[in-house]
Amino acid sequence: MFLKVKTPEEVFEIIKTFGPLGEETVPLGNAFGRILSRDVVSPENLPGFYRSSMDGYAVRAKDTFGATETLPAILEVSGEVPMGKKPDIALKPGEAVKMPTGGMLPQGADGVVMVEYCHELDQNTIEVARAISPLENVILPDDDFKRGIPVLKKGSRPLRPQDLGVMAGLGLSQVTVYKRPRVAIISTGDEVIPVTQRPKPGEVRDINTYTLSAFCTQSDSDPVNLGLCRDHFEEIKTRIERGLQEADTVWISGGSSVGAMDLTLKVFESFENAELLVHGISISPGKPTIIARIGTKAVFGLPGHTASAMVVAEIFLAPFLRRLSGTVHFSESLHDEIEAELSRNIESASGREEYFRVKLKKGDGNLVAEPIFGKSGLISTLVEADGLLRVERNTEGLYQGEKVRVMIFNPKKGEFR
Amino acid sequence: MFLKVKTPEEVFEIIKTFGPLGEETVPLGNAFGRILSRDVVSPENLPGFYRSSMDGYAVRAKDTFGATETLPAILEVSGEVPMGKKPDIALKPGEAVKMPTGGMLPQGADGVVMVEYCHELDQNTIEVARAISPLENVILPDDDFKRGIPVLKKGSRPLRPQDLGVMAGLGLSQVTVYKRPRVAIISTGDEVIPVTQRPKPGEVRDINTYTLSAFCTQSDSDPVNLGLCRDHFEEIKTRIERGLQEADTVWISGGSSVGAMDLTLKVFESFENAELLVHGISISPGKPTIIARIGTKAVFGLPGHTASAMVVAEIFLAPFLRRLSGTVHFSESLHDEIEAELSRNIESASGREEYFRVKLKKGDGNLVAEPIFGKSGLISTLVEADGLLRVERNTEGLYQGEKVRVMIFNPKKGEFR
Repeated sequence: MFLKVKTPEEVFEIIKTFGPLGEETVPLGNAFGRILSRDVVSPENLPGFYRSSMDGYAVRAKDTFGATETLPAILEVSGEVPMGKKPDIALKPGEAVKMPTGGMLPQGADGVVMVEYCHELDQNTIEVARAISPLENVILPDDDFKRGIPVLKKGSRPLRPQDLGVMAGLGLSQVTVYKRPRVAIISTGDEVIPVTQRPKPGEVRDINTYTLSAFCTQSDSDPVNLGLCRDHFEEIKTRIERGLQEADTVWISGGSSVGAMDLTLKVFESFENAELLVHGISISPGKPTIIARIGTKAVFGLPGHTASAMVVAEIFLAPFLRRLSGTVHFSESLHDEIEAELSRNIESASGREEYFRVKLKKGDGNLVAEPIFGKSGLISTLVEADGLLRVERNTEGLYQGEKVRVMIFNPKKGEFR
Repeated sequence: MFLKVKTPEEVFEIIKTFGPLGEETVPLGNAFGRILSRDVVSPENLPGFYRSSMDGYAVRAKDTFGATETLPAILEVSGEVPMGKKPDIALKPGEAVKMPTGGMLPQGADGVVMVEYCHELDQNTIEVARAISPLENVILPDDDFKRGIPVLKKGSRPLRPQDLGVMAGLGLSQVTVYKRPRVAIISTGDEVIPVTQRPKPGEVRDINTYTLSAFCTQSDSDPVNLGLCRDHFEEIKTRIERGLQEADTVWISGGSSVGAMDLTLKVFESFENAELLVHGISISPGKPTIIARIGTKAVFGLPGHTASAMVVAEIFLAPFLRRLSGTVHFSESLHDEIEAELSRNIESASGREEYFRVKLKKGDGNLVAEPIFGKSGLISTLVEADGLLRVERNTEGLYQGEKVRVMIFNPKKGEFR
């Protein structure tokens, strides 16, 4: 039945055929974490004026030449520069003007002596105990940015706080970015009931809507929750049609029985403009995954077991969403990986990549990765796990004590650090 | 003037005196990334019924004992279990019932034979080619969760997709979590103008509002933007009062001149219930940082230079926000660190921790950390940097070729991986 079982590498190649979504313009204040869809070029010189980088006195450097602690230069204080204003003073030879950090140099001045080297003799006179070079402690009008130079590259990485800061400094109050992917999420299964209901014998509550929606949020995408759906051809088809209208991709998590999977496949194939791309992936767990292109959009049939669906999400859907969101530097695995020592031998069937859930524990000066085993279909094993351990396709297992790299779930803040 | 200059260690101890905020209850679907304020205990047995973990046939294990490929057991098929329903069939000796994965076992059955080992002789008869043990391929009613056992611990880490999944499975549609910190952000300086305006000579645009707001968002907190403020005692005081009312902490980024800092300090001290905690930190950049407690809330006076303010944010404000948000496992540095080789010698004044901005580049099989130098007060150096390199207090510098650990900015997705 798995006519189109693909290797993970083949699946990544297929994912790469899906391009970024369109552009939109957002206010700078909302641009954190977004991906630029155009290069940002400096529209002006910054700071645009001669700016002091220190508290001190603006002087003509020449007037300080030869000054030392024992033989200081004596300068007349002719005023003070106010912050944020063009100074209305012009400096004459032998004069100094009091300067705040960030202030604009007055005409005639070409350097700033730090306040530490100035000694006030009286209100109008200072001693300068150190010579400065021309332009010392001065930011030139185009020191920070020269008009026309590239500042930020499109598609490189989600905008960071400092990236917004630089755009603020350049006056770019609107930013053109790629649209955030919208993901339609459908949970199917005759046995699945809403979380708020008490299951009757044979029923289970809907889990995948919650895990997949949160996974989208974690991946800088917006989930569009289309709710629960019976294992019924027309119902599923109508729901997918709605998903294709309202979102950029549709994720349907089906039952784990062969019958439920067959149904998902039949619905995908019933779309006139459907192309079946993947029917099974040679990984475990996660093998029963279906990918089709309907029109221009990718539609995923995910395993019903939450644990399997989550592995597929971590390995394939995360890079797929990065692809839609316009990240040029496509990389299969951008996972935070952490090195640990394996706590026991694990066996793996060769011929497919196998992912083990592991718990990380602090060992004797290192981290220990402890595989979590449990019956297929349990959800309890999911909360215990800190990450995934991959065993390569042509490896038959790993030994206790081996150094392994663990892909961390939600790397933001792990308690084991 | 720095009467209360503290070491970073002392500042962390001060940060630890601020506790988590109150609780609130949110719908499960909004709980991603939130911190539990109460332990979650399983309210029921899960799945609550005998559930098949495989596609196959429900049988009495006894009826398969001794079955092999050459000597299969012959069983009569007495029906099929529908998904999501309590089966109305009771299994009699010598009978089998068709089972989907996830289905409920009929009365009388105590195991499931995988479909791979069953061969249909006709519509009503199968051969079973393998013996199963009692309860094989069956999830017991409390296998996943036993009523009353702890499921998730409070304060441990932001809720992950799979944590929501488990709560969904247990029917916990509402979750009690710590409130998200609200951070009032005030940008001061007579020279600072809104981003949408064109600066006149001497003026610069407001950067810190954008960098600090985005930093809050990145740190799972909500910025409350209180806008720009002149270097004027009463104006600043009124703004801080508003911040104390509307938020859980107030961050004011002042000018970088001594005068502007003094003003911030004076305003802090003018509050009747103010206690000055920190007046300067022995790090570079970031030394001119003021921390006070006004009532029960922490108020931060941050350096006006964006680059310095960002270092203070990364090192101190991130753990402070984790503290407010209820993360029990307080750790100063939860930064993603990455190992790299230093591209050149760097000198550091001993007696203070020094942070260098570095760019990471792919070297010959390793990463190379290239320090970024530039005049103090430039913002262009910020976009170039991938992270920070710390030089310890009692180190005079680091050598070219040394292995160093770089704290990554916004570790989510770095393009150098």
